[in-house]
Amino acid sequence: MALRAALRNKRGALGLLSQLSSGSHGQVRTSPAFVTQRRNNSSSPQVKVDFDQSTGVAVLHMQSPPVNSLSLDFLTEFCISVEKLEMDKSCRGLIITSSQPKVFSAGLDIMEMYGKSPERCGVFWKAVQEMWLKLYSSNMVTIAAINGSSPAGGCLMALTCDYRIMADNPRFSIGLNETQLGIVAPFWFKDTLANTVGHRITEIALELGLLYNPTEALKIGMVDQLVPEDQVLTTATQTMKKWLAIPDHARQITKSMMRKPTIEKLVSKREADIQNFVGFITKESIQKSLRMYIEMLKKRKG
Amino acid sequence: MALRAALRNKRGALGLLSQLSSGSHGQVRTSPAFVTQRRNNSSSPQVKVDFDQSTGVAVLHMQSPPVNSLSLDFLTEFCISVEKLEMDKSCRGLIITSSQPKVFSAGLDIMEMYGKSPERCGVFWKAVQEMWLKLYSSNMVTIAAINGSSPAGGCLMALTCDYRIMADNPRFSIGLNETQLGIVAPFWFKDTLANTVGHRITEIALELGLLYNPTEALKIGMVDQLVPEDQVLTTATQTMKKWLAIPDHARQITKSMMRKPTIEKLVSKREADIQNFVGFITKESIQKSLRMYIEMLKKRKG
Amino acid sequence: MALRAALRNKRGALGLLSQLSSGSHGQVRTSPAFVTQRRNNSSSPQVKVDFDQSTGVAVLHMQSPPVNSLSLDFLTEFCISVEKLEMDKSCRGLIITSSQPKVFSAGLDIMEMYGKSPERCGVFWKAVQEMWLKLYSSNMVTIAAINGSSPAGGCLMALTCDYRIMADNPRFSIGLNETQLGIVAPFWFKDTLANTVGHRITEIALELGLLYNPTEALKIGMVDQLVPEDQVLTTATQTMKKWLAIPDHARQITKSMMRKPTIEKLVSKREADIQNFVGFITKESIQKSLRMYIEMLKKRKG
Repeated sequence: MALRAALRNKRGALGLLSQLSSGSHGQVRTSPAFVTQRRNNSSSPQVKVDFDQSTGVAVLHMQSPPVNSLSLDFLTEFCISVEKLEMDKSCRGLIITSSQPKVFSAGLDIMEMYGKSPERCGVFWKAVQEMWLKLYSSNMVTIAAINGSSPAGGCLMALTCDYRIMADNPRFSIGLNETQLGIVAPFWFKDTLANTVGHRITEIALELGLLYNPTEALKIGMVDQLVPEDQVLTTATQTMKKWLAIPDHARQITKSMMRKPTIEKLVSKREADIQNFVGFITKESIQKSLRMYIEMLKKRKG
Repeated sequence: MALRAALRNKRGALGLLSQLSSGSHGQVRTSPAFVTQRRNNSSSPQVKVDFDQSTGVAVLHMQSPPVNSLSLDFLTEFCISVEKLEMDKSCRGLIITSSQPKVFSAGLDIMEMYGKSPERCGVFWKAVQEMWLKLYSSNMVTIAAINGSSPAGGCLMALTCDYRIMADNPRFSIGLNETQLGIVAPFWFKDTLANTVGHRITEIALELGLLYNPTEALKIGMVDQLVPEDQVLTTATQTMKKWLAIPDHARQITKSMMRKPTIEKLVSKREADIQNFVGFITKESIQKSLRMYIEMLKKRKG
Repeated sequence: MALRAALRNKRGALGLLSQLSSGSHGQVRTSPAFVTQRRNNSSSPQVKVDFDQSTGVAVLHMQSPPVNSLSLDFLTEFCISVEKLEMDKSCRGLIITSSQPKVFSAGLDIMEMYGKSPERCGVFWKAVQEMWLKLYSSNMVTIAAINGSSPAGGCLMALTCDYRIMADNPRFSIGLNETQLGIVAPFWFKDTLANTVGHRITEIALELGLLYNPTEALKIGMVDQLVPEDQVLTTATQTMKKWLAIPDHARQITKSMMRKPTIEKLVSKREADIQNFVGFITKESIQKSLRMYIEMLKKRKG
């Protein structure tokens, strides 16, 4: 079970922590332990890529137990994989999905933000930026096959894709729920969401840190399509064919035209954004909040 | 009855006048009299604030008979009340509602725009700007409990809030109907509406000066929720709890991030916007239009 | 029949060609012939204007067989007609419709882009810009009476109007389908669409070059109203009355406020946009694509 695996693994992720803190789910799906800062299996690959030369489509499976938390290690491996595919001219499409049960990605790894030096926090944040930059500006067709919950950074990753297919399971949720934990989605998270669902829905979603079930997410346009859980990946593969029927160069120029202003904004403010994150997350009050969450989770575990 | 009260009170408000002029309602709910420029009861408070220390929530009742027209006096008192609450750290949430029957606020007071000196018009417009700036940038959670019609400036006031709950009474309407009277909603009215309902709905709403019934307003996203008339305030109070469950600092930073560009735009063009308003409203042709409306209303009264 | 007329007339239009190339319709409604560069009836007017002095409303009928392709000749005549109406103070409203069966306008004339000198391509593109600038900034109320399919440039023309009424015939389609032909809708096409349907729908519509049937187009807001095919023009006339009930000056200032940033953007980048188009369309690879489409169409014809 995901719960036990999570407890065993002692990893916390921002989105799921936040869900817990809101008390609306009553399920403990993950548990952090700030002592353990390295994954047990850090030597095994956290990302598995299946590339089909005949179709030009790669499927990237996130396989970092228990909940695909976006740690620095994970992000580094993820970005290298995406960059390799990006540079391979024969790869035209990328499907991102999860090998973990019930979760797409639980978002930023809270352990990267708690009790770390400012330097380390800065390195981590730069990796988060890099993931977003690589995906949002990818020349490949990118499709998120969202086969589980996708809070916070997991939602951000999905939002960078050209198309989002989500499992129609009411237990899953998706959203940028940062404020529920007392932290703030930065401007480029906000821009990405606003480009997807518009200004007003973004305002209410971010201020309340809302997590949406699949039906709600479809309604507001946060995802594009719902399918039964066991058809997420096959539907992504079929949808990819439709996208690849469009001449690459025309699609790429169009995609760039749509996203360039948003990308250039982060590129031009990248260093300031890092400083802003580091200054915020290393505040005593924020660190205290994080510690309280972590300890609450440990008690639940007990 | 509101009609008789309006006639007795001899006050005109932009929104309701405009409704009349469009001939689509057939009800005379207000009547101006450009001779009477002072409210009979100008000494009594036009705004009543109930602040509950235990919840941190203030309810501001607009009580300027008959239709809560936004006169210079009213706006001044309103802004002072909001500023006091803003500076009181124990006040975290503000609910704005009306004590008048059938109307939330009828909008800008037409008598402040007719037959007045340019200087006086400028002072008035600056007060309208001030109301918007205070509300749109408030650190408090702001909820509009819209228990009656809310045209023009009344709609603007509601649009500044974080959340809008409207009475589900088909006789009520809401919208920026300025063009119906021959005047123009300025860019910051437009920006506020576009931030709420998007560019295209704003275009058509402003060009036609549309007033929406509650069902229509909900559909386009001008309001967030409809409830029976007698539950508007209680629903606002319950909703406020949900918003206050979010840590203030995270919500405030997020709100500021969403609204800052719109606010900075008016701040940087504030004086030019005043000059623009004064130049427009003191035009002979516009004054003539206003006089014709006022005289038409007087005849109806007769 | 339109098919035979099209084949006889030997004219290609971007939108319909593109539809053909996608193979999703199976109907050959038009056929180009790059030898014939002049319309048979180039001396007869391609635009017919009926102006009713009593209402102040002009109806512009596009009558360039077979599919109202936007050739340089057509655009020149179209712009002159619109400018005349614009300068006639008694003309307050403009309805644009088609005299051709089953098509509103098939979009840019592909023969203006194939095998032409860069200079000629530049002149053509400037005329396309001019059409957009004239319509998008018109002081008149403009209503598109879309009584047939309206791909690519035909869709753009419709999008410039204040209101769009489309025939509720599932065989008709509308959209900016440029990428399907391997070319790209420029930034001002994109801006116009985004102003109408928002950022996310624009992204997906442009990247996939989607054509929508009337029901879909209504749902995403690409058109405002559907009516039976034989009521398109009468509904446009009735709707015009509603728009003309608003004082012109207030409506015009409001319209300008909504559209000015988008217009100024093209005005300031007009020459660069021409160079960009010419550089792209005269590329050998693009010319080759166009030739293949044209030859495929000729074969189908045979």
